[in-house]
Amino acid sequence: MTTKEHNDVMYQYNYYFRHMNPNQSTPYSYQPYHFNNEYYTNTTQNGLIDHNDLYFRQHILTFVLIHGSWADPTFWNGIAGELRKMGHIVHTPQLPGHGTDKNKNVTHAMITQSVVEYITTQNLKNIILVGHSFGGSVIQKVAEQVPDRIKRLVFWNAFILKDGESMADQFPPQGQQFILGLAQQSPDHSIKLPFSYFREVFVNLADLQTAQQIYNTTTPEPSAPLTEKLDLKAFYQLTIPRSFINLLEDTAIPAGETYGWYPHMASRLGIFRFIQGHGDHMTTAKLQPRKVAHLIVNAGRD
Amino acid sequence: MTTKEHNDVMYQYNYYFRHMNPNQSTPYSYQPYHFNNEYYTNTTQNGLIDHNDLYFRQHILTFVLIHGSWADPTFWNGIAGELRKMGHIVHTPQLPGHGTDKNKNVTHAMITQSVVEYITTQNLKNIILVGHSFGGSVIQKVAEQVPDRIKRLVFWNAFILKDGESMADQFPPQGQQFILGLAQQSPDHSIKLPFSYFREVFVNLADLQTAQQIYNTTTPEPSAPLTEKLDLKAFYQLTIPRSFINLLEDTAIPAGETYGWYPHMASRLGIFRFIQGHGDHMTTAKLQPRKVAHLIVNAGRD
Amino acid sequence: MTTKEHNDVMYQYNYYFRHMNPNQSTPYSYQPYHFNNEYYTNTTQNGLIDHNDLYFRQHILTFVLIHGSWADPTFWNGIAGELRKMGHIVHTPQLPGHGTDKNKNVTHAMITQSVVEYITTQNLKNIILVGHSFGGSVIQKVAEQVPDRIKRLVFWNAFILKDGESMADQFPPQGQQFILGLAQQSPDHSIKLPFSYFREVFVNLADLQTAQQIYNTTTPEPSAPLTEKLDLKAFYQLTIPRSFINLLEDTAIPAGETYGWYPHMASRLGIFRFIQGHGDHMTTAKLQPRKVAHLIVNAGRD
Repeated sequence: MTTKEHNDVMYQYNYYFRHMNPNQSTPYSYQPYHFNNEYYTNTTQNGLIDHNDLYFRQHILTFVLIHGSWADPTFWNGIAGELRKMGHIVHTPQLPGHGTDKNKNVTHAMITQSVVEYITTQNLKNIILVGHSFGGSVIQKVAEQVPDRIKRLVFWNAFILKDGESMADQFPPQGQQFILGLAQQSPDHSIKLPFSYFREVFVNLADLQTAQQIYNTTTPEPSAPLTEKLDLKAFYQLTIPRSFINLLEDTAIPAGETYGWYPHMASRLGIFRFIQGHGDHMTTAKLQPRKVAHLIVNAGRD
Repeated sequence: MTTKEHNDVMYQYNYYFRHMNPNQSTPYSYQPYHFNNEYYTNTTQNGLIDHNDLYFRQHILTFVLIHGSWADPTFWNGIAGELRKMGHIVHTPQLPGHGTDKNKNVTHAMITQSVVEYITTQNLKNIILVGHSFGGSVIQKVAEQVPDRIKRLVFWNAFILKDGESMADQFPPQGQQFILGLAQQSPDHSIKLPFSYFREVFVNLADLQTAQQIYNTTTPEPSAPLTEKLDLKAFYQLTIPRSFINLLEDTAIPAGETYGWYPHMASRLGIFRFIQGHGDHMTTAKLQPRKVAHLIVNAGRD
Repeated sequence: MTTKEHNDVMYQYNYYFRHMNPNQSTPYSYQPYHFNNEYYTNTTQNGLIDHNDLYFRQHILTFVLIHGSWADPTFWNGIAGELRKMGHIVHTPQLPGHGTDKNKNVTHAMITQSVVEYITTQNLKNIILVGHSFGGSVIQKVAEQVPDRIKRLVFWNAFILKDGESMADQFPPQGQQFILGLAQQSPDHSIKLPFSYFREVFVNLADLQTAQQIYNTTTPEPSAPLTEKLDLKAFYQLTIPRSFINLLEDTAIPAGETYGWYPHMASRLGIFRFIQGHGDHMTTAKLQPRKVAHLIVNAGRD
């Protein structure tokens, strides 16, 4: 055995030892796909192990990822793949009126109900329930119905409505008029964003080609759920831990004194864990899925 | 031919093919200086090509860069060089009362007029008009006069005045008093910033030596254009696309509840594309010109 | 001598020459531990030397680092080590009622007095006085007493109180009630934060294991200094230069319209140097001490 071979074996041995998971009956030694990936190699600048990396392997989380308006489960493709590579369990249900569902005649309650049924039918427990954008208001309502199944709520540049508010109440004045005007022009009151608007405020960091690719994945958004006033009294009685992820260049809701993702809507969560990075509303999910997956794990872990 | 040689040739062949520029009669294969530079090598973390890089080569933009107060066209040297390396056309006109122009007896209208004449004399069209700092108010007024020549307005930590406002109206209270006080002490009412002030708020990220080097490039600023109330009714009727670039450590105008670059002044643009990075008011242009050039391209591209 | 050996010698020679310190009787050639470290290798993207690095060696600074609530001098261990590697002199006094001092019956004035005595007993001059968190209010009061010994004040996500305010006045409403409630439950009115709260808002970026390690270093915080109204009239007459360091994910005091580290409290400094980076309230000091040390040098240097 050469020195190198010896070292490789010792490294592998130490590896097993170091990655034994005290909280699991099956330690990581039984999960060979965890080896040979990039998560093992990071160390901090002063040479210490960044416990984040161990963490990724020692704590399997169950994520339920709720997409936003104009989106569908394919929005999560890259991110879900990265989360699964880390060993996590990931669900990405499709909301009624979105994606392949052509019926735009849906209410916010129907959307909430579909997620509740998804969770209860599959008997999911201890979940990290993540809402992006419009999905924030959905996880607020889902949490009211199945609080005992939820370990933590994660809002990613997401709507957090006060009791009695609608999504549209949180649009800035010019956006409210513009978006609701589009709904009135459409026979089924669904909203198709013009590319010129989408490109500027949803995918501001993308090049034109990527912007068009992302735009081509969107479908018209049912307008009723955006304008319904939601009863959220029960939500504000919940004590489920909650996190807020803010991407600093997300201007789908622009920053302003009386509106905006952060701190305006985030502050409604009371005590919450704050996670932040660079990115915009829809480009970063596509081009930097691993980066977003890390933020989601940082938001969702114990 | 070995496998490696074969792969190299195929790579090169594909390279030419991929980088053909549909908008030019001479595709990139005729521009050998484009090869062997760093813009070809970036890929995203998931192995896909970052279309940004192709974009840099496929879409030649014409930039007109308008410097701010205390500055002159040399402010753009590094950035303009990087933009030209990417293949773009770059103009950096000198504003009256600045740089080599010793006559400080200028008005905001004279400054605007000089830029309008620069653009019309050279018959520039389809331009990306970029204003830094004070230059923001200049491109607001230029846009009123030659809207059809402008493809997009880019405000980089720049003044965006409401109709009837002056620059000084957007200084925070303590700054207003301080800066206008300096004007009164000077025979020609020009303003020479003391180094101690400049160093803290214009080049906060610089080391002392760099701070001094940048300070030595400044010239006294004519005060009249800072205090003139501008008629901007026509500007607020324009529909030219617009972007805002925010450097997060820029405190030339500090952040506050009723003043500041972003979101306070930026929000006046209505729907705009938001681009952001780390940097201060004048150091980043000098020490990280390529980074700023990328932000400007991201702000200016289609 | 081979070419390489020749180059190495010439490099070393130039090295000595370039790093002679004009302000010291013993130039760097006498400090061999300065060689072979990472500070020599950085260059900016355009190939120029980043003067920051030379600066780190040419200007020895004397830092007095004042820790915050629930912390003690060990909070600074990593950061102080990095600053010393750069050649700086670092003091990290322990505040009364903190760390190994079990007597929680202390006042804000006693804490201030201990720092003043530390500085005067050791006859420290020309110091960069850094306050983190609660330490901000301490350096405000220390500066009133020994202004001539202080070269610059550096507030790092630190309390900057107005005349007549207490720390508690700057807590957001829900935090105020929660934290002061904890004080009432404790026999000596000290405050032990529950881990669940600490983990979410003080070490939001940490993994669970690191969060627990940091939590285990904390001791109960005396509550009297948090609720005393401070007379700060003299502070607001001082003209000592000042800097503010903001870590963007620090939510120990969450961002809000009427509270928060930046810009709310920072803006009380008037003209100040703004330094910013990514990080939270207590994790970054431990896992990325070199990064924080750089921010502190950037805030403290001339």
